[in-house]
Amino acid sequence: MSKFWSPFVKDLVPYVPGEQPKLTKLVKLNTNENPYGPSPKALAAMRAELNDNLRLYPDPNSDLLKQAVARYYGIDAGKVFLGNGSDEVLAHIFHGLFQHDLPLLFPDISYSFYPVYCGLYGITSDPVPLDEQFQIRVADYAKPNGGIIFPNPNAPTGCVLALDAVEQILKASPDSVVVVDEAYIDFGGETAISLVDRYPNLLVTQTLSKSRSLAGLRVGLAVGHPDLIEALERVKNSFNSYPLDRLAIAGAAAAFDDREYFEKTCRLVIDSRDTLVAQLEAKGFEVLPSAANFIFARHPRHDAAGLAAKLREQGVIVRHFKQARIAQFLRISIGTPEQNQALIDGLGEL
Amino acid sequence: MSKFWSPFVKDLVPYVPGEQPKLTKLVKLNTNENPYGPSPKALAAMRAELNDNLRLYPDPNSDLLKQAVARYYGIDAGKVFLGNGSDEVLAHIFHGLFQHDLPLLFPDISYSFYPVYCGLYGITSDPVPLDEQFQIRVADYAKPNGGIIFPNPNAPTGCVLALDAVEQILKASPDSVVVVDEAYIDFGGETAISLVDRYPNLLVTQTLSKSRSLAGLRVGLAVGHPDLIEALERVKNSFNSYPLDRLAIAGAAAAFDDREYFEKTCRLVIDSRDTLVAQLEAKGFEVLPSAANFIFARHPRHDAAGLAAKLREQGVIVRHFKQARIAQFLRISIGTPEQNQALIDGLGEL
Repeated sequence: MSKFWSPFVKDLVPYVPGEQPKLTKLVKLNTNENPYGPSPKALAAMRAELNDNLRLYPDPNSDLLKQAVARYYGIDAGKVFLGNGSDEVLAHIFHGLFQHDLPLLFPDISYSFYPVYCGLYGITSDPVPLDEQFQIRVADYAKPNGGIIFPNPNAPTGCVLALDAVEQILKASPDSVVVVDEAYIDFGGETAISLVDRYPNLLVTQTLSKSRSLAGLRVGLAVGHPDLIEALERVKNSFNSYPLDRLAIAGAAAAFDDREYFEKTCRLVIDSRDTLVAQLEAKGFEVLPSAANFIFARHPRHDAAGLAAKLREQGVIVRHFKQARIAQFLRISIGTPEQNQALIDGLGEL
Repeated sequence: MSKFWSPFVKDLVPYVPGEQPKLTKLVKLNTNENPYGPSPKALAAMRAELNDNLRLYPDPNSDLLKQAVARYYGIDAGKVFLGNGSDEVLAHIFHGLFQHDLPLLFPDISYSFYPVYCGLYGITSDPVPLDEQFQIRVADYAKPNGGIIFPNPNAPTGCVLALDAVEQILKASPDSVVVVDEAYIDFGGETAISLVDRYPNLLVTQTLSKSRSLAGLRVGLAVGHPDLIEALERVKNSFNSYPLDRLAIAGAAAAFDDREYFEKTCRLVIDSRDTLVAQLEAKGFEVLPSAANFIFARHPRHDAAGLAAKLREQGVIVRHFKQARIAQFLRISIGTPEQNQALIDGLGEL
């Protein structure tokens, strides 16, 4: 602790992202990236922007991309907020919408960045345990709160909540902002964006890092009532006027416009997931039902940390969390059929 | 004000960036962009990254770029912090290093984002008036404070402080962080990075948006003692693990490595500035001495807002601030010789 630091910095416990190895030969099934590249149209759109105009600031409102998102979902562009990855969007949400007297609710097993944001902005929280089957119990959220956030599908479990269950949570807390973090929604869930017109307390966040294969470009978004969007725009415009660069705006907009490629690659990932689940179950794993581009699995007779280490020796990296309730699980991103086979081969006889 | 907002949002007064017109025929001398494009080597480096690897997250530490900055300045990469534009770097500095009991000091005429950050993070400030000639008076900063920040050269005046004057400010406040915001340093000032080893309270920020012609890419940096860098890394890693995308890391690193192009284009801007100042003075303007890629000028017989409106009609946009002390000035970015001539022609007879 340096005397120069703002006092809160001493107690910050930053988020730890999954490893980004500099060796490229590893089979990387640890950070839930898409095994397929971005839409060729997205690459072409970025190529067209790669010129001397990079000397100029981007559009601070990223209107081109807001319109592409609005077009895709059939909504008004005034309901769309954009950020430098959905992590930045989430940070602004915590800052601008979750600083209230009552505690914020989120699942005890969930995206581990949520408690980090609470530390950053001095927000109190009250983690709500998942049930025995690692599912969100809707009734548990019907209590006084200063806001609610949960991933749907949840991470790292992969389990999805049906839209009517999401709606029950919204109805039970009409005076709180409810954020549905849909980073993985396109691999098997139903987006809550259709509910935005009826629930002024609903904000849906999404990322282009998963189903749109652009983790390397850093684009995320939120959709909600214009009053909620205004709070986020105020915070954003008091933080950084231009969070999206010229290439990101162009590439992300083209990715949204290329529905065909998007649907094709999502389908491939879902099909691979089904195959991989069957293979793992055949090896004795218990696999939670997944609607995401990853699965969460444990083996009744093998220690998860040991399995992760063994896989690493075979050149396959998966993610292991030390948190008590889930310390015997591995989170495995869905790769190409070849990568998934490398995982199965790496596990060997169990 | 919505009941859903965090209370502080109501009083936020966001920063207003200069206009980014969607018409491309305007001569754009309003946001201090470089009239020359980025290094061809930077464009080539980005082109090489524009491929399927965009499906993968970037290196969260952007080591390639930290090393390029360290190489350029002959310093250790552990003294370098990176962000999504220097505005994001500044935001993290205000959050992580300026929340103290005593007020933050900055010039009354300065980068107008500073008071906005204070609003965002609840920091009290005590603006210090520039002298009659719009210069920073070093002695005015030798008083109790919770931190000091000033641009060098200052914006929007363009006036530069010599390195020994910067050092006096550092010496007078050894218990405060002093941030020298060097967005424009390469057009005529001397960087304070050479002082970092001797002053653990010094942090120098820079951007790639001006002298390196990459405003459209969003990259900024800070250089300082590892203790200061650690505070910023903690805040950054509690906010967004990956603020720089894969293209930005590659392009920015290549831009730092291309010293020759950088020096040539800086020289062209400086030469154009000299010519433009002479032309404006011949028209009766008073021009503050500038070490930046813009000039700050007023005409004794013509209202600044009126001149800006007249130029706009001629297709030339410059920046006019309404703040009382500077309401009769125009801030004019240095363009190419042709753009500067369009400005002179647009002014006509005065």
